[in-house]
Amino acid sequence: MEHATACSAPPSAALSLAHPLSHRGVRHVQAMVRTESGFDRREEKIVDEVPVGLVYADDLFAVMLATPTDLEDFATGFSLSEGIVGSAGDLAVTAIDELTDGVRIRMQLPVERLAALLKRKRNLMGGSGCGRCGTDSFAETLRPLDPVRSAARIEPDAIIRAMAALPAGQSLNRETGAVHAAGFARPDGALVAVREDVGRHNALDKLIGALARARIDPTGGFVVVSSRCSFEMVHKTAAAGIPLIAAISAPTSLCVGFAETVGVGVAAFVRQGRLTVYAVPSRVAMPA
Amino acid sequence: MEHATACSAPPSAALSLAHPLSHRGVRHVQAMVRTESGFDRREEKIVDEVPVGLVYADDLFAVMLATPTDLEDFATGFSLSEGIVGSAGDLAVTAIDELTDGVRIRMQLPVERLAALLKRKRNLMGGSGCGRCGTDSFAETLRPLDPVRSAARIEPDAIIRAMAALPAGQSLNRETGAVHAAGFARPDGALVAVREDVGRHNALDKLIGALARARIDPTGGFVVVSSRCSFEMVHKTAAAGIPLIAAISAPTSLCVGFAETVGVGVAAFVRQGRLTVYAVPSRVAMPA
Repeated sequence: MEHATACSAPPSAALSLAHPLSHRGVRHVQAMVRTESGFDRREEKIVDEVPVGLVYADDLFAVMLATPTDLEDFATGFSLSEGIVGSAGDLAVTAIDELTDGVRIRMQLPVERLAALLKRKRNLMGGSGCGRCGTDSFAETLRPLDPVRSAARIEPDAIIRAMAALPAGQSLNRETGAVHAAGFARPDGALVAVREDVGRHNALDKLIGALARARIDPTGGFVVVSSRCSFEMVHKTAAAGIPLIAAISAPTSLCVGFAETVGVGVAAFVRQGRLTVYAVPSRVAMPA
Repeated sequence: MEHATACSAPPSAALSLAHPLSHRGVRHVQAMVRTESGFDRREEKIVDEVPVGLVYADDLFAVMLATPTDLEDFATGFSLSEGIVGSAGDLAVTAIDELTDGVRIRMQLPVERLAALLKRKRNLMGGSGCGRCGTDSFAETLRPLDPVRSAARIEPDAIIRAMAALPAGQSLNRETGAVHAAGFARPDGALVAVREDVGRHNALDKLIGALARARIDPTGGFVVVSSRCSFEMVHKTAAAGIPLIAAISAPTSLCVGFAETVGVGVAAFVRQGRLTVYAVPSRVAMPA
């Protein structure tokens, strides 16, 4: 990982982040802990959250608040999830810069991908006077995807095994208690990768990037997440071609509706040996 | 609440939401529940999540994925949190439209506020070639705020009482299990308002809007949230002038750092009679 010098960004007036990349996602802070006998001053660990700017060529596409770990996975997964590239081979992460107020990931794209991105950005930035009513951005929010092509049909016990194995990969969460995780499991439930982030969407992007960079085929396995399952979680799962997502907590209506349109199975409330299938039940092997 | 006819938005190719506003935030879906004896088909309740477009004059500012309840509170709180208006009296919600792919909230602003908003939007949309390096958007992400002016000093027992009272206000969460809540408490811990949303930031915006619309002074009380405490939660708390936020789960590094710069107390892990103060300990009454 290359760490270039910060370019001409002025320091933020409000806040300095003091070299977030050196903290491996964990910060030590002084806190007052209330105990039965009063307040004790203690050193506590909290998860790192910093603005991460994603720059293609010289163009800042988005600033995400994220945990600054596995940043090349994050950049790759974000670029795939957003449809900015079609494969990890189209993306080159050229620099990860520590700025005074965040981290900047600089990437290069093939010229035709960059042209498409700039055109899309211009469309997003277009006026939205009456008659268009902001539909460009509504359409962008619900960006349609091709259905997932996979014959996968996962055994419920494999889903339960994968979820049970997830905590072992949640080292940041064990230290700080505020961190979501996304894991990828083979059809038998064996976890092959886990990524963590303060944001559940970022954790999933990191996982998708890690799979792509390791050339692991996502179509045969499934994702388990330590969070709820919202629209964006299913959108990223579908964009990666993964046929099923399993969540420890609840799904939302838009998650379920979108999952049906793209053929992604949704299993939720995966806990204590139970689960509920909310979308595309054919993705889960059930007795006839 | 006025429900105008949707204007010329074309239907989404991917998804139709079928009148989300009629569902009061809850959807009934058919799901397959795994029990000890196999899978049972059951009707389950899930929380509603839809794209909500925030339109000032004719200009779409943002599309948020949110639960379509308390939308006037949401529009008001969002506008205050983003600094688009300085007081609820400057904002008029003129229509809430159901589109085929979401909900659109239309608002009007005083002409000088609208001019400032359009200028800000143009700045955000400006080019970010080398030399500027996206700093405009980094700055927007970490938008500085004036410190909170309040002499409030909250008793720890009041924080614990308010958090203990929060579940009674979480009716959507009781039904669906995927919903965050934000509540506002008076200094003695008595909750005066609770708002819910699938997104924790939206829940806090709804709460802030509800306080403003009811002309409740936010500077003397504090906020309790059913979630973690991240940067944006403290940013919204500070923008509303609220001197303390208490979270049931963990804080992040950016939350704590920013809270110190704006004078917002942060109490986290408020559970089972305990709490830990991570920022501005003078906001919590502690024995000398």
